Amino acid sequence: MNDLLEQLRAGLPAEALISDPDVMVSYAHDMASFCEAGAPAVVVLPRTVEQVQHVMRTATALRVPVVPQGARTGLSGAANASEGCIVISLTKMDRILEISTVDRIAVVEPGVVNAVLSRAVAEQGLSYPPDPSSWEMCTIGGNIGTASGGLCCVKYGVTAEYVLGLDIVLADGRLLTTGRRTAKGVAGYDLTRLFVGSEGSLGIVVKAVLALKPTPPPQLALAAEFPSAAAACAAVCRIMEEGHTPSLLELMDRTTIQAVNKMAQMGLPETTEALLLAAFDTADPAADLAAVGVLCTEAGATDVVPAESAAESELLLQARRMSLTALETVKSATMIDDVCVPRSQLGAMLEGTAAIAAKYDLTIGVCAHAGDGNTHPVVCFDHEDADESRRARESFDEIMALGLELGGTITGEHGVGVLKKEWLARELGPVGLEMQRGVKRAFDPLGLLNPGKLF
Amino acid sequence: MNDLLEQLRAGLPAEALISDPDVMVSYAHDMASFCEAGAPAVVVLPRTVEQVQHVMRTATALRVPVVPQGARTGLSGAANASEGCIVISLTKMDRILEISTVDRIAVVEPGVVNAVLSRAVAEQGLSYPPDPSSWEMCTIGGNIGTASGGLCCVKYGVTAEYVLGLDIVLADGRLLTTGRRTAKGVAGYDLTRLFVGSEGSLGIVVKAVLALKPTPPPQLALAAEFPSAAAACAAVCRIMEEGHTPSLLELMDRTTIQAVNKMAQMGLPETTEALLLAAFDTADPAADLAAVGVLCTEAGATDVVPAESAAESELLLQARRMSLTALETVKSATMIDDVCVPRSQLGAMLEGTAAIAAKYDLTIGVCAHAGDGNTHPVVCFDHEDADESRRARESFDEIMALGLELGGTITGEHGVGVLKKEWLARELGPVGLEMQRGVKRAFDPLGLLNPGKLF
Repeated sequence: MNDLLEQLRAGLPAEALISDPDVMVSYAHDMASFCEAGAPAVVVLPRTVEQVQHVMRTATALRVPVVPQGARTGLSGAANASEGCIVISLTKMDRILEISTVDRIAVVEPGVVNAVLSRAVAEQGLSYPPDPSSWEMCTIGGNIGTASGGLCCVKYGVTAEYVLGLDIVLADGRLLTTGRRTAKGVAGYDLTRLFVGSEGSLGIVVKAVLALKPTPPPQLALAAEFPSAAAACAAVCRIMEEGHTPSLLELMDRTTIQAVNKMAQMGLPETTEALLLAAFDTADPAADLAAVGVLCTEAGATDVVPAESAAESELLLQARRMSLTALETVKSATMIDDVCVPRSQLGAMLEGTAAIAAKYDLTIGVCAHAGDGNTHPVVCFDHEDADESRRARESFDEIMALGLELGGTITGEHGVGVLKKEWLARELGPVGLEMQRGVKRAFDPLGLLNPGKLF
Repeated sequence: MNDLLEQLRAGLPAEALISDPDVMVSYAHDMASFCEAGAPAVVVLPRTVEQVQHVMRTATALRVPVVPQGARTGLSGAANASEGCIVISLTKMDRILEISTVDRIAVVEPGVVNAVLSRAVAEQGLSYPPDPSSWEMCTIGGNIGTASGGLCCVKYGVTAEYVLGLDIVLADGRLLTTGRRTAKGVAGYDLTRLFVGSEGSLGIVVKAVLALKPTPPPQLALAAEFPSAAAACAAVCRIMEEGHTPSLLELMDRTTIQAVNKMAQMGLPETTEALLLAAFDTADPAADLAAVGVLCTEAGATDVVPAESAAESELLLQARRMSLTALETVKSATMIDDVCVPRSQLGAMLEGTAAIAAKYDLTIGVCAHAGDGNTHPVVCFDHEDADESRRARESFDEIMALGLELGGTITGEHGVGVLKKEWLARELGPVGLEMQRGVKRAFDPLGLLNPGKLF
């Protein structure tokens, strides 16, 4: 242990090392509830690639596990410390190294906050689309580790689609460069993509080349009220079937609406069973919204209210963005599912979730990236009530089982971490799991990187 | 050898097995020139997943290498047979299993021809964007193996972005399912993407779930004539810098223009140094073309001619599509480069290529997916002239060296195969190469799948 600190100190400035247990405790957890975490032996905050390499060389020499962290806003425990590990926080490596308007790329260090990058590129007429709800806090490195999504995905896709190349410090401290700065490239296996979503288990991302898009026109939204989740889902299917390309297509159920109103007095319609938010950032968003409004009405919407301005649209989005946080106030604790099903199965998924809530006598609020079929059923419960806690866990699991039955995945964007390890094995099956483990061994033969996560 | 045929016969119908050397010779090569190829021991044409599994189990039992093939339209020798191998042609597994307008996916077998799929989904109001020049012949499995691009990439990206999930027969015959049918999903490492562009070296793709887009409006094109490649490249940079999103942005140099005219009497302007083709499939393509026309004029275009109709636009595209074929008629042989550089370096790349042509006293025609910085310098030479052949090879290599110097990649879309193996090692560096080989070993520990390709 003293050996570890001493060897780390040899290549790190004093302020990059934290070993005070009282301070370290704040580095133990990400934002997932009910995920095991251990006490780190030490927390390091490197500022350079060389310092990260020194940490990894030391970890390998002493066989100490390493847990990489960004802003710890993750929802699956993937950044939780393991007992006696080195926590390596990349938050101090937070420089934007380059923005090119001609090449439409940004080169960044992993600790850059998503919103900081988004604003910096916006100043140059560009956009970095991925926008997880935590975008004001979360880091690009964390986004890459968890392959995070957001509200924009229905049109602009997830983080993975914006990562062109990476610099990675491997478990043994060597530097690996993957991918490219170019728009296209097929030289060898796509290792870049392998790292996106790998939850820090294959190497430490120390630099990323990101693709940017031109800033789209401001988006305009509408809100449509539905008498049932089924009707709202039918509208979603019709919208996509008709070839529309909304920049946002989100659903909030009644529980979510009420929670948001209670937290922030948003004035959302509390008697509606499902609120669908649709937005377009096209050349003529009003025309697109009008067409989508008709489809909503045909599918049974009782009211369709287009926003009058970009500001009003932004307010609707804010309501959606605070959904998870609002649902966390319903009871003392929550477990947040992240099941993604084929869009055509969204109705069945929501009906099934309601049935699970009834079976276990629990409040399960649902918000969803409906256009992607990505649902976030939030199981609300009293964590001091042992029986309710047990029912919560069982319903949380049953929701994932339902997702798999419907041809979906246990995680659309939040990742596996420690929360869904058993379920990952179930989704992948034995052959899939074996191949995943083979990849892990190829990069981290000693198993030092974020052990106990994923599988 | 008899053992091999006998064991294969045990699980394959007679018509799925070819062992006549005269017939097998046509399965030895893809469309790359000057790439080594051996004589296969046998060619198999399975129709089912089980038959592919039987072939791989047999190959593993007898330690016989396997070379998977689609339509053999590849340009890097990745599908070339190796001596004594089993060639497994997937062309008979050519069913479109499903098209869903709500989920915007197609599920296909690997032998489906790109154009067949494109037309089938078009009938349902959907599009499958990837459009390599060989799209009337090439198969989806081959497209996946080589991660192929096309003219659409500047707006719609490459094949990789449309592959959601795969069924793969592993080297030992087991079936691996990767990815998903859903719009999003982050369950474990992205093995799907690892297989895209792996040139059949990790497993045999037997089914693919592909993402589809709504059919865009018909695209409208313009042609702009430039007095120099540098001026045309400057226009490309300005177009992208101004935030335009063309559906196509292509460049043909004078050699290419003349070759195309000679082959097909297209009436392209032969005195111009560089012809830029731009197209938009937006709501108002004429307005976008007008804006781009102004940028071209500002960058020095001597003439800007918008197409009057979709049909006229299609003609321009056809001219571009036949460029490689036309350049092949300039001399008795060609070597086709595929260097992709950051868009901002496109001018330097073309100038450098012209200097290389002058240095080696060779004709090197260039067509380029200019919007992506992806150039195809085509070295034209007389293959019976030993000295010219040597100079051709040296210039071909020097073009790749220049691409790397400019921050680019040796291959934007044609792949590595046997043609660029040495250059892949140079691009990846020793650490990159070692990790790539580690991945290969994890999937194919006996090294039976397409040996001698990539690295």
